[in-house]
Amino acid sequence: MTLVSQLSNPRSYAVIGTGALGGFYGAKLQKSGLDVHFLLRSDYDWVSQHGLQIESVWGDFQLPQVPAYNNPQKMPPCDVVIVAIKSTENHLLPQILPPVLKPDGVVLVLQNGLGIEPEIAEIVGNHRVLGGICVICSNKIKPGYIRHLDYGMMKLAEYNHNYQSGGITPRLQQIGEDFKKAGVPLDIAEDLLSIRWEKLVWNIPYNGLSVVLNARTDQMMSNPATRVLVEEIMGEVLEGAKGCDRFLEREIINQMLSHTETMTPYKTSMKIDYDQRRPLEIDAILGNPLKMATAGGVHLPRIQMLYQQLKFLDTQNCP
Amino acid sequence: MTLVSQLSNPRSYAVIGTGALGGFYGAKLQKSGLDVHFLLRSDYDWVSQHGLQIESVWGDFQLPQVPAYNNPQKMPPCDVVIVAIKSTENHLLPQILPPVLKPDGVVLVLQNGLGIEPEIAEIVGNHRVLGGICVICSNKIKPGYIRHLDYGMMKLAEYNHNYQSGGITPRLQQIGEDFKKAGVPLDIAEDLLSIRWEKLVWNIPYNGLSVVLNARTDQMMSNPATRVLVEEIMGEVLEGAKGCDRFLEREIINQMLSHTETMTPYKTSMKIDYDQRRPLEIDAILGNPLKMATAGGVHLPRIQMLYQQLKFLDTQNCP
Repeated sequence: MTLVSQLSNPRSYAVIGTGALGGFYGAKLQKSGLDVHFLLRSDYDWVSQHGLQIESVWGDFQLPQVPAYNNPQKMPPCDVVIVAIKSTENHLLPQILPPVLKPDGVVLVLQNGLGIEPEIAEIVGNHRVLGGICVICSNKIKPGYIRHLDYGMMKLAEYNHNYQSGGITPRLQQIGEDFKKAGVPLDIAEDLLSIRWEKLVWNIPYNGLSVVLNARTDQMMSNPATRVLVEEIMGEVLEGAKGCDRFLEREIINQMLSHTETMTPYKTSMKIDYDQRRPLEIDAILGNPLKMATAGGVHLPRIQMLYQQLKFLDTQNCP
Repeated sequence: MTLVSQLSNPRSYAVIGTGALGGFYGAKLQKSGLDVHFLLRSDYDWVSQHGLQIESVWGDFQLPQVPAYNNPQKMPPCDVVIVAIKSTENHLLPQILPPVLKPDGVVLVLQNGLGIEPEIAEIVGNHRVLGGICVICSNKIKPGYIRHLDYGMMKLAEYNHNYQSGGITPRLQQIGEDFKKAGVPLDIAEDLLSIRWEKLVWNIPYNGLSVVLNARTDQMMSNPATRVLVEEIMGEVLEGAKGCDRFLEREIINQMLSHTETMTPYKTSMKIDYDQRRPLEIDAILGNPLKMATAGGVHLPRIQMLYQQLKFLDTQNCP
């Protein structure tokens, strides 16, 4: 375990990317009384005038005024900087992160996929990065308006060089407490890489196939051929985790299949990006896991093929 | 080798399915002076009045009158019955074949894929089936009008129970001579299963991916991700052949890749079917080869995944 300092009390937060994810969790934190600063781009004008509106299965609420910014240089340095932009925009982070981060502050990466934390450690230094996964169905409906449809739980963990297990640190507990007080179901975990692979068991098959097959989750589950394919791809994700010395229970596959079967028909985030002709998060969600599995000597033909198909479609969609 | 009788001289032909393939080769045979009878469905009225028109890279020609039928019971029994309907229509063959086949006649299967000949042997008896592959780019543009864009060569072979090698028989040579006299470049082969697997090296990746990725051959070849994927799927086809004790040279992959690279951009037959909302030939082209490979102990994950994806898309397209 690494020596890391505690964060100041109470923590201040910066949200980089005020969309379906960052907007929702940031709003929950601000509503709980914390000091939260939101970085926006296209929605800046609207949100700085009207704040955020949250329609949520946990209860609707409105924040008529939020500290909104369109320039990271104008933001105050914060204790915790939540990264919630699309990973396809991460080339902007070397400009964004340094000014918004307190000397003892940390970056919390809530993006999907693998391999983002090492890039961020390059920018802000080692021992200043945490990662988290969010199991949530939420969409941004219009500027400043977020609809939270289902789930919402998070798992957070420390990032350590090369994804070595980071253990439970005081600052991880502090951040966890902040989210819990804000009403977010949350676990803190000792090992970031395990929870990232666990999330990929869902994200790789459903995000990938939803784009390739132009399909919602319920359509994939009700067709016998794709239901088996989803399960086989999930099996490959477990193999990939094994190649990184992370051993997930096979039972997780059955859990995710049956959760998805009973879930409201859902358009995945990658499918929403595709339909809106935005670049797809292929590298974070498929490419980096493939690289790590390959480095561990594991070969994942179905995920490799899905990656190749998505690369083709992404190029045609956003030339 | 099995004892099979020679065919009468000259041979009469029946063409079951007068489309891009059957219409083209049947017209070539009739033009060479042979007696050819064409079975049609939707195009019957037009063709019985106006005959067939062929626009071909080998030279255009017209047959103002052809013996056209809309009912197999009205056709004369023939020496050679060419099966050129879509394999998704093969449930009609038990009604169609018996009346059009002479007692010593044979059925020549020109459909794509694997596993059709055993079904036809069930209908007409053993030792009465031959199979062939056609390397041709042709499309039916409108009723009775066929456009032949490129290639056109055939390979023919005897079918034997369980695809055991059938050797070179006199009747195989007779049929081969008929096509050659009609101007069709043709090889006769000792082993049907080898030439069927060889054709699948092209058909499985390009037909399958063209539907899943909504892509023409040139688009698949110019994108680095799909170019590699096509090559990997071709490698799996060679593995599948090995599972059936057929050993294709790896060089065939490079030949097909470079042919396809220099070919006129081409919409595959499966993509044309998909766009016209017709059922796809998934079982003949992917399902049956997968079954035979599996029976030989060979596992083909990419082709399996392509099969599952196509099954899904076909169900959505033709519910």
